Amino acid sequence: MKLDEVIKKIQPLDESAMQAARERQNMLTKPQGSLGRLEELSIQLAGITANPFPSVERKVVIVMAADHGVTAEGVSAYPAEVTPQMVLNFLRGGAAINVLARQADARVVVVDMGVVVEIEDDSGKLIRRRVGAGTMNQAQGPAMRREQALESIQSGIEVAELEISKGADILATGDMGIGNTTASAAIACVLMNQSPERVAGRGTGVDDDGLKRKMAVILRALDVNKPNADDALDVLTKVGGFEIGGLVGVILAAAANRKPVAIDGFISTAAAMIAAVLAPESREYMIAAHVSQERGHAMMLEWLGLNPLLDLNLRLGEGTGAALAFHLIEASTKILCEMATFGEAGVSERSD
Amino acid sequence: MKLDEVIKKIQPLDESAMQAARERQNMLTKPQGSLGRLEELSIQLAGITANPFPSVERKVVIVMAADHGVTAEGVSAYPAEVTPQMVLNFLRGGAAINVLARQADARVVVVDMGVVVEIEDDSGKLIRRRVGAGTMNQAQGPAMRREQALESIQSGIEVAELEISKGADILATGDMGIGNTTASAAIACVLMNQSPERVAGRGTGVDDDGLKRKMAVILRALDVNKPNADDALDVLTKVGGFEIGGLVGVILAAAANRKPVAIDGFISTAAAMIAAVLAPESREYMIAAHVSQERGHAMMLEWLGLNPLLDLNLRLGEGTGAALAFHLIEASTKILCEMATFGEAGVSERSD
Repeated sequence: MKLDEVIKKIQPLDESAMQAARERQNMLTKPQGSLGRLEELSIQLAGITANPFPSVERKVVIVMAADHGVTAEGVSAYPAEVTPQMVLNFLRGGAAINVLARQADARVVVVDMGVVVEIEDDSGKLIRRRVGAGTMNQAQGPAMRREQALESIQSGIEVAELEISKGADILATGDMGIGNTTASAAIACVLMNQSPERVAGRGTGVDDDGLKRKMAVILRALDVNKPNADDALDVLTKVGGFEIGGLVGVILAAAANRKPVAIDGFISTAAAMIAAVLAPESREYMIAAHVSQERGHAMMLEWLGLNPLLDLNLRLGEGTGAALAFHLIEASTKILCEMATFGEAGVSERSD
Repeated sequence: MKLDEVIKKIQPLDESAMQAARERQNMLTKPQGSLGRLEELSIQLAGITANPFPSVERKVVIVMAADHGVTAEGVSAYPAEVTPQMVLNFLRGGAAINVLARQADARVVVVDMGVVVEIEDDSGKLIRRRVGAGTMNQAQGPAMRREQALESIQSGIEVAELEISKGADILATGDMGIGNTTASAAIACVLMNQSPERVAGRGTGVDDDGLKRKMAVILRALDVNKPNADDALDVLTKVGGFEIGGLVGVILAAAANRKPVAIDGFISTAAAMIAAVLAPESREYMIAAHVSQERGHAMMLEWLGLNPLLDLNLRLGEGTGAALAFHLIEASTKILCEMATFGEAGVSERSD
């Protein structure tokens, strides 16, 4: 589907499935509301899937990788060559996301959205949707052309729709790209109208000087490019990244196809913000996996109106927080579908 | 083992295993510290098990049930008959803890520590360690005799040691007992020297009048019994419960046998506080699963020096929060044991 069709297809949550799930939660053998967030989540999932007995059994983490021209400004603690090295690590199963996805019985789909070097993939598993060989340096001009921004979103839609057509019940967003906390912070600054001091963090771990440099680079990128906050595509074009655009597509495609999407950390949340500007109702399909250590992330989640499930001081990306959240999301569906009711179990209800 | 032997057997965490785990975490293909709490947890688990590659594969939730004489004061939203009804629900697999334990691939062990009625168990799975037919009403005198408090702890030790001898890698505490948030709040008030207003919450869901009554009942129990905060056994005797004593034994036995123990919610944390007074080093073996909705719980965890993994607004008990935390605890071990190192994966390290 094309982006404008995807956006048009996104519907509000299904109220009748939510009502059925709510009523069932109140019949299960526990005090009403005593499973807190799990109960709310199960009702949201019923609304997303239009099914009072939702399932998230088949789980897919889509990890999108790309390079960023802005690394030339010295904004990261790691060299840009780490992006392709980590993509190979994903393909060989040695990265954190592989370990956590295996534990959650989730598939990992790795997409090259625009790493500088062409990756030699022996596994045959890498999906190549290269929009370019890394973005341009946003401190000097737009990170990409508007057609590239559209192409990156379109690629994300197609990757997600292929997974959904193969049976995915839930998607999660993941990212890899040295320099991408700079791009994500720039996006968040524009959309929230906040300064880099409030939003930019240490990413993979820059020191105090590096953080100051990073904030100055973002200020310069905003000044040079003057992204239009009302035009999400303009923001993605000028200060975004190819993997971020890809994740925007994944999120919108999930929403259009009534599938929940677990939003990982800082980079995924920047993508979610762009998706929310393009299609406000897509927010109802998002589940914020965690609030990360990265400065600004909590504020970005609040801007989206999302309440994160986990707070474990993570700052890795790759979809790791989302893979951890899968357990809780699935727990909420199992509670709804598998617990006995008061009637079935012969348990007395409240005495007042 | 007898209680005093168990206490003597509890050792500090193994520093060399922790150091090995810490060094390995810093070699894995991720920025140092970027998995936050998961990294810390894996190092704690290495120290607990004295193994730089800890495993928590075989998981057991020990759910202890008992009745409370204090329910005569109208402190609960549910009638006391719910205790045996829920025990049957546990044995038949229909309760929340069954659902969440199945998801986490954990066994549920159900122990009758002193439910008023003898439970007819068709499953043959109920473990009977009845210390009495419910406690006495603590608002009028001691909840139990000191020998009963000792017996409840001793039973918990034996139940836990049997599971450990059968191969359990990790234990979790769970509870069932109408009235037991009143007993747990009373314990916490004594040990933290706090008023019931700061500690007692709505339990299964009492209304404002019920909550006021509950606080007044706790005040009366403390006034009538004058528990000695320096003598944890005296506190358990006067304002505790049989299932709480059982959980104290489970926690101490886990620590003595170098097994981690996931502490569930309000009731389990009251038991953990008694364990910590009896054997301060047992705290190192505890993992706080979550902070619950119940007033006072966060303060109790802080008193113990524990930082909860989850905050999902739960207030069910049964070990449900601990079963959810199992996923995160296991994730931490898998990260430590299964991720590739920088060297293995050919990934460049920091450039600064």
